Amino acid sequence: MTARILLLNGPNLNLLGTREPEVYGSESLADVEALVARAAGEFGLDVRAVQSNHEGALIDAIQEAREDCSGIILNPGAFTHTSIALRDALASVPIPAIEVHISNVHAREEFRHHSYISAVAAGLIVGCGVQGYELAVRRLAQLLAG
Amino acid sequence: MTARILLLNGPNLNLLGTREPEVYGSESLADVEALVARAAGEFGLDVRAVQSNHEGALIDAIQEAREDCSGIILNPGAFTHTSIALRDALASVPIPAIEVHISNVHAREEFRHHSYISAVAAGLIVGCGVQGYELAVRRLAQLLAG
Amino acid sequence: MTARILLLNGPNLNLLGTREPEVYGSESLADVEALVARAAGEFGLDVRAVQSNHEGALIDAIQEAREDCSGIILNPGAFTHTSIALRDALASVPIPAIEVHISNVHAREEFRHHSYISAVAAGLIVGCGVQGYELAVRRLAQLLAG
Amino acid sequence: MTARILLLNGPNLNLLGTREPEVYGSESLADVEALVARAAGEFGLDVRAVQSNHEGALIDAIQEAREDCSGIILNPGAFTHTSIALRDALASVPIPAIEVHISNVHAREEFRHHSYISAVAAGLIVGCGVQGYELAVRRLAQLLAG
Amino acid sequence: MTARILLLNGPNLNLLGTREPEVYGSESLADVEALVARAAGEFGLDVRAVQSNHEGALIDAIQEAREDCSGIILNPGAFTHTSIALRDALASVPIPAIEVHISNVHAREEFRHHSYISAVAAGLIVGCGVQGYELAVRRLAQLLAG
Amino acid sequence: MTARILLLNGPNLNLLGTREPEVYGSESLADVEALVARAAGEFGLDVRAVQSNHEGALIDAIQEAREDCSGIILNPGAFTHTSIALRDALASVPIPAIEVHISNVHAREEFRHHSYISAVAAGLIVGCGVQGYELAVRRLAQLLAG
Amino acid sequence: MTARILLLNGPNLNLLGTREPEVYGSESLADVEALVARAAGEFGLDVRAVQSNHEGALIDAIQEAREDCSGIILNPGAFTHTSIALRDALASVPIPAIEVHISNVHAREEFRHHSYISAVAAGLIVGCGVQGYELAVRRLAQLLAG
Amino acid sequence: MTARILLLNGPNLNLLGTREPEVYGSESLADVEALVARAAGEFGLDVRAVQSNHEGALIDAIQEAREDCSGIILNPGAFTHTSIALRDALASVPIPAIEVHISNVHAREEFRHHSYISAVAAGLIVGCGVQGYELAVRRLAQLLAG
Amino acid sequence: MTARILLLNGPNLNLLGTREPEVYGSESLADVEALVARAAGEFGLDVRAVQSNHEGALIDAIQEAREDCSGIILNPGAFTHTSIALRDALASVPIPAIEVHISNVHAREEFRHHSYISAVAAGLIVGCGVQGYELAVRRLAQLLAG
Amino acid sequence: MTARILLLNGPNLNLLGTREPEVYGSESLADVEALVARAAGEFGLDVRAVQSNHEGALIDAIQEAREDCSGIILNPGAFTHTSIALRDALASVPIPAIEVHISNVHAREEFRHHSYISAVAAGLIVGCGVQGYELAVRRLAQLLAG
Amino acid sequence: MTARILLLNGPNLNLLGTREPEVYGSESLADVEALVARAAGEFGLDVRAVQSNHEGALIDAIQEAREDCSGIILNPGAFTHTSIALRDALASVPIPAIEVHISNVHAREEFRHHSYISAVAAGLIVGCGVQGYELAVRRLAQLLAG
Amino acid sequence: MTARILLLNGPNLNLLGTREPEVYGSESLADVEALVARAAGEFGLDVRAVQSNHEGALIDAIQEAREDCSGIILNPGAFTHTSIALRDALASVPIPAIEVHISNVHAREEFRHHSYISAVAAGLIVGCGVQGYELAVRRLAQLLAG
Repeated sequence: MTARILLLNGPNLNLLGTREPEVYGSESLADVEALVARAAGEFGLDVRAVQSNHEGALIDAIQEAREDCSGIILNPGAFTHTSIALRDALASVPIPAIEVHISNVHAREEFRHHSYISAVAAGLIVGCGVQGYELAVRRLAQLLAG
Repeated sequence: MTARILLLNGPNLNLLGTREPEVYGSESLADVEALVARAAGEFGLDVRAVQSNHEGALIDAIQEAREDCSGIILNPGAFTHTSIALRDALASVPIPAIEVHISNVHAREEFRHHSYISAVAAGLIVGCGVQGYELAVRRLAQLLAG
Repeated sequence: MTARILLLNGPNLNLLGTREPEVYGSESLADVEALVARAAGEFGLDVRAVQSNHEGALIDAIQEAREDCSGIILNPGAFTHTSIALRDALASVPIPAIEVHISNVHAREEFRHHSYISAVAAGLIVGCGVQGYELAVRRLAQLLAG
Repeated sequence: MTARILLLNGPNLNLLGTREPEVYGSESLADVEALVARAAGEFGLDVRAVQSNHEGALIDAIQEAREDCSGIILNPGAFTHTSIALRDALASVPIPAIEVHISNVHAREEFRHHSYISAVAAGLIVGCGVQGYELAVRRLAQLLAG
Repeated sequence: MTARILLLNGPNLNLLGTREPEVYGSESLADVEALVARAAGEFGLDVRAVQSNHEGALIDAIQEAREDCSGIILNPGAFTHTSIALRDALASVPIPAIEVHISNVHAREEFRHHSYISAVAAGLIVGCGVQGYELAVRRLAQLLAG
Repeated sequence: MTARILLLNGPNLNLLGTREPEVYGSESLADVEALVARAAGEFGLDVRAVQSNHEGALIDAIQEAREDCSGIILNPGAFTHTSIALRDALASVPIPAIEVHISNVHAREEFRHHSYISAVAAGLIVGCGVQGYELAVRRLAQLLAG
Repeated sequence: MTARILLLNGPNLNLLGTREPEVYGSESLADVEALVARAAGEFGLDVRAVQSNHEGALIDAIQEAREDCSGIILNPGAFTHTSIALRDALASVPIPAIEVHISNVHAREEFRHHSYISAVAAGLIVGCGVQGYELAVRRLAQLLAG
Repeated sequence: MTARILLLNGPNLNLLGTREPEVYGSESLADVEALVARAAGEFGLDVRAVQSNHEGALIDAIQEAREDCSGIILNPGAFTHTSIALRDALASVPIPAIEVHISNVHAREEFRHHSYISAVAAGLIVGCGVQGYELAVRRLAQLLAG
Repeated sequence: MTARILLLNGPNLNLLGTREPEVYGSESLADVEALVARAAGEFGLDVRAVQSNHEGALIDAIQEAREDCSGIILNPGAFTHTSIALRDALASVPIPAIEVHISNVHAREEFRHHSYISAVAAGLIVGCGVQGYELAVRRLAQLLAG
Repeated sequence: MTARILLLNGPNLNLLGTREPEVYGSESLADVEALVARAAGEFGLDVRAVQSNHEGALIDAIQEAREDCSGIILNPGAFTHTSIALRDALASVPIPAIEVHISNVHAREEFRHHSYISAVAAGLIVGCGVQGYELAVRRLAQLLAG
Repeated sequence: MTARILLLNGPNLNLLGTREPEVYGSESLADVEALVARAAGEFGLDVRAVQSNHEGALIDAIQEAREDCSGIILNPGAFTHTSIALRDALASVPIPAIEVHISNVHAREEFRHHSYISAVAAGLIVGCGVQGYELAVRRLAQLLAG
Repeated sequence: MTARILLLNGPNLNLLGTREPEVYGSESLADVEALVARAAGEFGLDVRAVQSNHEGALIDAIQEAREDCSGIILNPGAFTHTSIALRDALASVPIPAIEVHISNVHAREEFRHHSYISAVAAGLIVGCGVQGYELAVRRLAQLLAG
């Protein structure tokens, strides 16, 4: 049976490519999802892609991943800095998650420097543009192979 | 007419019994809801049980309680520490609420020590395991009798 | 074609008129929406009114405003102080938003003094009661005329 | 007898139109005073306009307003962030004051985010350009009519 | 042999019933001690009641409980917020303690929101009036039965 | 019947005259007690003088003052900065207390600048040497006469 | 030659008796100045009384006191908390100053708890109403006699 | 036409030479003004010297410098640490200002370590005694020559 | 005449050997007192050993040491972090004190990292187990010899 | 000509494989350098590997990279949290740098959560073990290709 | 014998002229060293110029200056904000040091506003470009002449 | 084979005896090294003494101690407060280290109160003068014997 990755994108990431392209680049969310599917495929991994502006929907998706996923790639967007509930959801599923941020959050406003998520993530990739998602696939693949 | 209690459980509490059992015990959410119904029954009180990972859904439930409930037992989970909206919802309904936390949040991470909810709750029960819900029923019963 | 304003009210504002009337006055949300429609009409502006207790729903509404609105009047309620996601949504739509608070938040609890929204709003009107919404319409009208 | 408004502008506002026009716009203080007189006239209100770079002179003016004014429109400029004496003066006169800031202070330096004045003001209008003064007249007019 | 509970009340609790009755209720310390004895009796538990305004005396009492008590109900009063020595005493006796506060300390001054005791208590009951002591007995009884 | 004042001196004040005379002067505690008795006598007031290094003993003394004293003069020494229990004791007796510090605590270490006591004291006299006690008698006399 | 005291009252103290009488009492500034003159007279001391809402005028008055005064009684009003310049002025004149506050500033807003003045004052009298000025005269008299 | 420098000295600097000479040296303000005039003369620059204890007067002087000065040498005294209004005045005149402090403020009280002025000054010279003013003339001369 | 050392142990140190032996080791307080007596004897020094859970009793003991001791070895236990009164007592006796902590307080909770005592101690020995007491004797012996 | 990458490892990273292997894994620094060389080779990139415990040596190496490198992979070790000089060095060379941390620093001590480096890095990879270096090569390769 | 000045430049200052010229200007370190030599020569002073990226090397140089230098001109670069060791080195040599910063550090990032060095420097010159070094020579010359 | 101790002294300690003798005493570094050698010899222990002003050199020395030392005596000087790298080096060698400070750092500037080293040291000896080194030898000897 093929292993599956949950690709989870948080609030406002559905606007990728249209929103502040000088910060987030010109690729759309669909481009990102295709890129992740392709990269995962190279490692024989399936992908389920979810995006939501609703914190609760992201939590639901993480909880459901318990059933049929082996790893998570999560870009929590602004919830990174405010959601302990998301952190708790991640901590309660026994599969590794890689946190991804497209832009370099540390070169932006002070309130973007703290993450509630990182402490419970298996890894963190920041400021590598949409390539960050591909690097996350590679890390997950190695963890799952390990 | 029988008085009714709203039993409201916040994010990730649907995982009770499966998530970090060394922290939260082995009883499931269904067990908790049964326990509360039983305890409330002893005082002639009805229970409506709601759980959601969505902050908005919890607010909706509290607002609806204005219509047909006399008290609230609330375990806000991680929203305890981040949701002023939940606090405002509680403050806007003229019925008493008891805040319950299963684990001793004060023995955990620093960010779990502050509660936006407590100041507007009628009472607070922490670290008494699932028995905390039963103690909350007793307190509500006395308040409603009072 | 008539320009349109999005009137967006956040959590617990559906209780207007019933909740703490000494703080928020006795007018209902319906009254506010009528007042805004009337004021906007004077400037030949249409209004779409949305209220939600769900942060995600507010973000969705802001994103949709990209399609067919020219300005936003936003009372984010308690999300003012906690939601970076709402701020990001506003920052990602290229239309002006006026932030409105009915009560004087600076005369209330310390945690209501900070707003994540203000820095990305075009203007801010606080403590002017429901008239604040009408003043916001006037400001938007001038900005759109400008 | 006609009611009178005190229009009070603090330090450096005499430079309006010449100082950092990209922040404060190109209208002069005289323009603002004319605008307020015109708007007040529509409501049958007189205006006394005072500007000073001296904190003491502003306090004196507020104290004198006790005698013959029914409301105050106050742009305290930089004293907003540093003058408790100005706050005390406002708190000691039993007439409503609307605080106005031309620029969006929340999008500027951190030290401009806190106001000693707001907690004792009847209302607050920020970042609406010189139109903010006109909106303040409207609010005062309604309060005085109320 | 009957198990015994130590009921320990801290500074100023000897004034119960006479001191700020709108905060602490009208029942006296003797009433509380009787209430606890009665509740404990229902579970076949003995009670030794101690009250002192002396931090050292409270520490002595906790240390002595090592000899002949199976649980502690502790209302540390103002020492809650200042006494690390009391915390250390509790941590050094291998029997569970339930921390009780009659009033809702979280709705009072800021300095009453932090407790040095909670992290080493087995449970915490706040703002349930003197009934809080009875709920604490129930919790201890279950822990001792467990 | 003659009214009585409780003169209460906290930790290390028994060393007055011998301890750091350059800070506290050369008069002994006995001198201070005589001075207060003399000053009180002029207003027909009795004095009971208590000094202790034990926080609990000071609390006991304040509680006992409920029975037979009309006012308190309190120099809490170092407990000024650390004892909420002492504050609570003062707040629970319905007679006025004047807080006295012999030296100017504001010209000493940072941690001596904050007082838990002042907010519940009727008045505060600092840095006036032992004459501060006499001034406190005068203030109490006026309050009691008032 | 008779020694002279400078009695210096800061911003808004000209409103004494009319401003928030429940906080500051019903006596006017003229009453206070008469009271101080009378008390000083008993010790053979002259008084020069100055009040201003202008920080600079207060500094000027302190500097002039170098010439012909032996002591200062200063109620700096709101400048207490914000004026380092006033502190420097006091520190630069070699005569003792007693700082007086009519109300108990420690029972009011947080920002009124810190004084820039106290560290350079010879003594501090707080919350003793207008009698505080009389007590300050007594302290100065003793210092000057000493 | 000769270029002119505004030499602006803030509160208490009129006491130079008499106030704390161990900190500020023994030269008077007149000496400083003569020194600056002499140094400026070497570069063919005129000087207008202003000193005031009134923040408003300093702001007025800065604003007037727009008309006929090419540079400013400013020792803001204690206003350095408290006056945003002074900062705003400097920021609103398009001529360079050099901030001078005679003593080493960084070796004094903590509250003297922060300057509101430095961020908008063209340069800063600290702790070089009255020679600091001469160095400031040299810097201004080079900037004006540049 | 033989010189004498006061060996002073604070709250909960009477439990040494039984309380958390993995932190404090297995030696009892009696063992420590014997160890200190033996080490002191080598230098011809007498020892008076006092232990109390009462802050006031520790202060009393320090004050009494003025009469007949030449040095103090003090393990203030939890009072280290909370007692300014103990610090003042030490500062008021003109004999040197060595502060000892058995465990490495810097490797424990944050609130154990600050000591009110250290600044007035002659020396500080931390984390050296009960041998720390012996090292303290050696240091005192050298100071007394010096 | 082949492009070159500077691989820079900071203090204590020479101990890789021997130091806390449960945190840092069992691979040695030589293994890491070989891994990076291999990965870089796949993209036709050369590697110069430098490790030093000396902050100055790391700065020297970064400055030298200006001459002959096109990108930097930097694991600053503990200097991440303390070295502004390293940050300045990076900011002064016009080639991209990827910051790598082997362990998840956000799950460790508080003082490891802040990085002076991240704000000037082109990307950041945390907690991916030694694979993080390989991912960094991939990111650099894409940036250099871009 | 000619007196000698140590000219000490810290990390990254060897890049002067090439690194961020819009911040630091276009003159090289060699230019600065020549400028200082020339200026010093006018006062009959010799110069030894040292630059290093190694904190230890800067400390060594300061210590060696004890032997043969009469003053120090120090631009500590980024070590300004992080090196207590450098501060201690300066404090341990009995010759005056002038601290120089080419750019206005107060108009840059928050972490550049604090200096460990200033409190032990004899003077401080900031934001005067490379001319700052020349002004420092003048100050040293006067101090040495004094 | 004889066991060996590494005696490591940090920045500026080479100046011992000449630098601020009132703080550090009059003994030189050579005296200290001789003293340690003598004390160690009594326990049959060898000593290797290293002093450096270079953080990197201290780290190198600690790493080398892995090879041939059984314990470390470390006076990190100013690096105590700033060097996480030094802490990491100590944490990575499996031999005990005793941290020594000659002066009482807790009675000096605030920034000397925090140590990055203490949490990973086996023990800490402060303010015992150069005798502190001898006490450290005794502690190490016991640990190595243990």
